[in-house]
Amino acid sequence: MNLDLDVLALLRAALGDRVDTTPSSLQSARADKSGHAASGTPLAVVRAASVADVQETLRIATQTRTPVVTRGAGTGLAGGANAGSGEIALSLRSMDRIIEVRPDDLLAVVEPGILNGDLNAALAEHGMWWAPDPASRAISTVGGNIATGAGGLLCAKYGVVRDAVLGVDVVLADGRLLRLGHRTVKGVTGLDLTSLMIGSEGTLGVIVGATLKLRRLVPGDVCTIAATFTDVRAAAAASAAITASGVQPAIMELMDAAALAAVHDLLSMEPPTPGAAQLTIQTDGPAAAAEALAIAGVLRAGGGTVAISHDRAEGEHLLAIRRSMHAAMERLGTTLIEDVSVPRSALPAMFDEIARVEREHGVMIPTVAHAGDGNLHPNFIFDGPEVPAHIWEAADDLFRAALRLGGTLTGEHGIGVLKRRWLADELGDDQWELQRQITRAFDPTGILNPGKVFGD
Amino acid sequence: MNLDLDVLALLRAALGDRVDTTPSSLQSARADKSGHAASGTPLAVVRAASVADVQETLRIATQTRTPVVTRGAGTGLAGGANAGSGEIALSLRSMDRIIEVRPDDLLAVVEPGILNGDLNAALAEHGMWWAPDPASRAISTVGGNIATGAGGLLCAKYGVVRDAVLGVDVVLADGRLLRLGHRTVKGVTGLDLTSLMIGSEGTLGVIVGATLKLRRLVPGDVCTIAATFTDVRAAAAASAAITASGVQPAIMELMDAAALAAVHDLLSMEPPTPGAAQLTIQTDGPAAAAEALAIAGVLRAGGGTVAISHDRAEGEHLLAIRRSMHAAMERLGTTLIEDVSVPRSALPAMFDEIARVEREHGVMIPTVAHAGDGNLHPNFIFDGPEVPAHIWEAADDLFRAALRLGGTLTGEHGIGVLKRRWLADELGDDQWELQRQITRAFDPTGILNPGKVFGD
Repeated sequence: MNLDLDVLALLRAALGDRVDTTPSSLQSARADKSGHAASGTPLAVVRAASVADVQETLRIATQTRTPVVTRGAGTGLAGGANAGSGEIALSLRSMDRIIEVRPDDLLAVVEPGILNGDLNAALAEHGMWWAPDPASRAISTVGGNIATGAGGLLCAKYGVVRDAVLGVDVVLADGRLLRLGHRTVKGVTGLDLTSLMIGSEGTLGVIVGATLKLRRLVPGDVCTIAATFTDVRAAAAASAAITASGVQPAIMELMDAAALAAVHDLLSMEPPTPGAAQLTIQTDGPAAAAEALAIAGVLRAGGGTVAISHDRAEGEHLLAIRRSMHAAMERLGTTLIEDVSVPRSALPAMFDEIARVEREHGVMIPTVAHAGDGNLHPNFIFDGPEVPAHIWEAADDLFRAALRLGGTLTGEHGIGVLKRRWLADELGDDQWELQRQITRAFDPTGILNPGKVFGD
Repeated sequence: MNLDLDVLALLRAALGDRVDTTPSSLQSARADKSGHAASGTPLAVVRAASVADVQETLRIATQTRTPVVTRGAGTGLAGGANAGSGEIALSLRSMDRIIEVRPDDLLAVVEPGILNGDLNAALAEHGMWWAPDPASRAISTVGGNIATGAGGLLCAKYGVVRDAVLGVDVVLADGRLLRLGHRTVKGVTGLDLTSLMIGSEGTLGVIVGATLKLRRLVPGDVCTIAATFTDVRAAAAASAAITASGVQPAIMELMDAAALAAVHDLLSMEPPTPGAAQLTIQTDGPAAAAEALAIAGVLRAGGGTVAISHDRAEGEHLLAIRRSMHAAMERLGTTLIEDVSVPRSALPAMFDEIARVEREHGVMIPTVAHAGDGNLHPNFIFDGPEVPAHIWEAADDLFRAALRLGGTLTGEHGIGVLKRRWLADELGDDQWELQRQITRAFDPTGILNPGKVFGD
């Protein structure tokens, strides 16, 4: 306790009023959007305003061996940024400047705290955008996006986060600043530590800046296709058939019956047909209309009832149904939002597995999927603040099913605390240990987000 | 020497006739296409036919502390796969099977020894391709491509190697097999060791298999545009103007006057206008023709003389001029082929720097550039087998110019032995040391390609 007071005194001496110990701030730093909260409250929330603030915080943390949990907007879904007893919550949310936009080099240099949505609004004025598009884009930061690898809706056509980051500036555990990566399209000088930082969930260093690879705004129309199916398996089979057909939608989202019903209820829409599942698909670019027609054909052949819209606003309205999923789930109870990914051909089989898990464990798992890329978000619904044992048992069953189908535990949310006990199951013990050794090279005293990802 | 005999005996006992000690094999394992050769000859060339062969070789290497240099087809340009005295050259060239092609999941699983060109010929039958497209594609392997990160001609539009690899199977220094990455579009389980392997040049492990992310063959026309300019700076400025204009060519290659003249001579074509430089540009996809017209407008505004071809065969013929660069250079003398990359807006300034280096150091540096992505290949020409000191001084000057312009030492060839002394200049000492520590986590006894990349 005295040590905690020393740490606070050091932080205050160095950082003044950027050290926030108001009870509400400490409380909110304990939790993210997963529903999970750390035990106890952190020592302080440091609201860094500059790279120097981050370096100062980490020097003090190293000197006093105090754990540091880096946070953006707190929209994580795996508990990775939750700070508890004896920890410093290092918030980068105030470091939200766009440092540089270069339309001639298709890159931008930004601070990590900028919101994904704000960045793309600013880039649109230059005729550009950054492709990662998490459903949370209005409230989540670019830094959090990079730290988790939160791809979102457009990954099949426009790539994952790793494809869209050229370099990152990183403050190491001891306060040293490293500039990783490059400003060029190509660059293979030494090991690719930029990619290693992407998805490292605060365990290797603090990302204080990023050089982002941009795209030009896509010219031409956007077509939106909504298709309903009598059951989710038919919808999943249709989405797999679209991928197999060779047409590449920009967005292809699947909602099962329970998810669809919950969102309709939230948005005060007419209830959907019981059991019906929906695919919402968007095509863009010069061939958007032709691709939409081809997709409609595949959907109808798969038993879908299809409507095509060529109106951009109507398309956004249709997608808003999908983007309301999280809010709709919050009304049903506490949710454990899972994030498995499977090869796209395995989507129908994965929905069979979800139905089996629901049946065998007696749980309800409304599910949405980024069907274009095979990433599913099954939502386990329960009462009370803590995930009950029987829910974890059902989740365990579901994780193992995804792995059996050639899938992975997490497509974009990360491991955090919620999935760490399954990490070695996917990686194998040898790879787990090798990854652990790499974290020690970055963070020899183990002060960076301890207990996350690799914790047990 | 006795120890060397022991190692050979162990290798022979385990691997039989896959252990090749014929003098010509040992000689050719010393060198790659850079012109550089290791000193001395390796103990043996192990021609692995299976993952088990690779594991066996590495177990023996670890047991006897014998260095292992992994090789594909020996087309490297930085000396990274050259094996010398006391080393085992581990050739993966015979492991060239395509294990699996999944059009429905847009992936293929391959062994590392398959040639890039052979892979794409096989994939074309399924209507797919793998985007990395090094100029050496007819003679270079996929494994070497991944180990160096050799992107090639199409990177600006279709991405770099890192964007096209989902997973790799790796044999560690002690013979253990790790399966890194995933078969899904998205996957963020643990640290991204797959990306770390890409471009690691044999220092972290031996890549014995790869899960590749494929693309559908691009439908529609291909348009090829050839434009000549009175000087290379005007051509470079025009290429930067095209990138800035927002049109995205698939390929945009620049040849300076000396490069163009040498290739014309090699191919027995009419000599080009003295001083003239050339851009060869290809557009593809549904908007190919419209994009070609837009590009032609930019080129003409920049002073170019422009010809457009809508014929695919004629386009390939025009690109063949560019692809003949390496052969043309070999006739001029020994070449040191460099590989700096700069932001695309800096291409004109980089050509100014090349002209300055030529002038100040009295050397000739015919240069081609992947102008679409800012990657330049300046060719330093000299006599004799070893790079003379004055050529290294000129190269040093050129490397520093590229770094000053926001560039990088190597866009796609890697560091190998030829650029290792500049590695810390780009990375900084802190990052250099961190990268070195990571190699030690993979290879604690230092038997994997010692002296390469991080050697001094």
